[in-house]
Amino acid sequence: MTNQTQIFGIRTIIEAVNAGETIDKVFLQKGLRGELFSELESLTRKHGINTSYVPVEKLNRLTKKNHQGAVAQIAPIDFHDLEHLVINVIESGKTPLFLLLDQLSDVRNFGAIIRTAECTGVSGIIIQKKGGAPVNGDTIKTSAGAVFTIPICKVDHIKDAVFYMQASGIKVIAATEKTQNTLFDVSFKEPCAIIMGSEDRGINPSTLKVVDAKAKLPLLGDIESLNVSVACGAFLYEAVRQRLSIND
Amino acid sequence: MTNQTQIFGIRTIIEAVNAGETIDKVFLQKGLRGELFSELESLTRKHGINTSYVPVEKLNRLTKKNHQGAVAQIAPIDFHDLEHLVINVIESGKTPLFLLLDQLSDVRNFGAIIRTAECTGVSGIIIQKKGGAPVNGDTIKTSAGAVFTIPICKVDHIKDAVFYMQASGIKVIAATEKTQNTLFDVSFKEPCAIIMGSEDRGINPSTLKVVDAKAKLPLLGDIESLNVSVACGAFLYEAVRQRLSIND
Repeated sequence: MTNQTQIFGIRTIIEAVNAGETIDKVFLQKGLRGELFSELESLTRKHGINTSYVPVEKLNRLTKKNHQGAVAQIAPIDFHDLEHLVINVIESGKTPLFLLLDQLSDVRNFGAIIRTAECTGVSGIIIQKKGGAPVNGDTIKTSAGAVFTIPICKVDHIKDAVFYMQASGIKVIAATEKTQNTLFDVSFKEPCAIIMGSEDRGINPSTLKVVDAKAKLPLLGDIESLNVSVACGAFLYEAVRQRLSIND
Repeated sequence: MTNQTQIFGIRTIIEAVNAGETIDKVFLQKGLRGELFSELESLTRKHGINTSYVPVEKLNRLTKKNHQGAVAQIAPIDFHDLEHLVINVIESGKTPLFLLLDQLSDVRNFGAIIRTAECTGVSGIIIQKKGGAPVNGDTIKTSAGAVFTIPICKVDHIKDAVFYMQASGIKVIAATEKTQNTLFDVSFKEPCAIIMGSEDRGINPSTLKVVDAKAKLPLLGDIESLNVSVACGAFLYEAVRQRLSIND
């Protein structure tokens, strides 16, 4: 499935970017020089495209074709514009429930979270342009196809999305251990967005400073963290429970 | 990590079984004959050990050593005895919360569930001797080491464990779509056990007939199921919430 969404060759990729194709990631050959190559490098910087400098052997594994030192993965989905999405959700009359993912790195976790988001009525998922797992064939598979039905937005920084949410009257709740509150102490009934951090580093500290609320999952054993897709599911189902207004 | 827990050779495996080693699975060469081989076959049947008949190429991939048509994986943990475990938990004064896994096949799901169980104070996990994911290196890794701290029991059939739970005053709740009740309608406050089904077939229909309650996760989108480790996490955290006695 990955091959279907792969392009290669420096000029081809430049043309794809200029044509507005949604490039997920560009792999560039480490140490390569040249005018056209530099043009591609500055173009990816300008558009904030995720790039990675890799040995030529990695590129040869990605494709058997003549890649000229550059292979790009085209996202199999169209990303949504955050502002349009938020406006559309608010105008729809539904109580917004957004999910912000701060550089989650594991594709299977990412896919499982997209699947759970679809099952819990999440209005849209916001990811960062750089540093996170790509939307690729594995994501599609583990999401059970939910990538095609739930809106996904890319932003330069998750913090930008936090500010935009807040400006739109949406409460931003961080899923983090750095609090005394559990998720059962926090209200998800009003318009809200939940941020989940990356597997290794959690939520960026500067983002954590600007959120409206923090909540943790109670951990009753000795292990200090849950798998992020499991944790995300527990948060989203607590939101579902509260919104269904069911008490004990 | 898998190699550390692997033994090979027909006689070696026979001796290991007779010595009471916890064999997780035996791979036998398809089409092989011989007296010693038949002895091993009947021994695995007698002890209810999970066996799989595979082409010789598979065995050659499992080990480069002279396997003689048989490779066994030794479980890296000691399994607990169900009756002892249930008695110990009841005598400890804690409200029992057991987890029954009906032939879950994916090792990563199995590991994530063990991790979540540890984090939610589950008293023990019960799996079936045959047909499920093994406790191997991948399980250990994805469980974040929780396999070593949470008691795991193996039973011939999950239904046996259901009857034993019920006889011990423990309510058995099935996580299944085949009900109108959501998990928010069911009480997890009393001693209880939750059954999660396999990824593809769910809970065995004959087991489903004998449970005390059924509960589903509300699905608000178009996708008809969640990842089983995510679903299990949502159930276990609902039990945690109810037991913490927190209302809206």
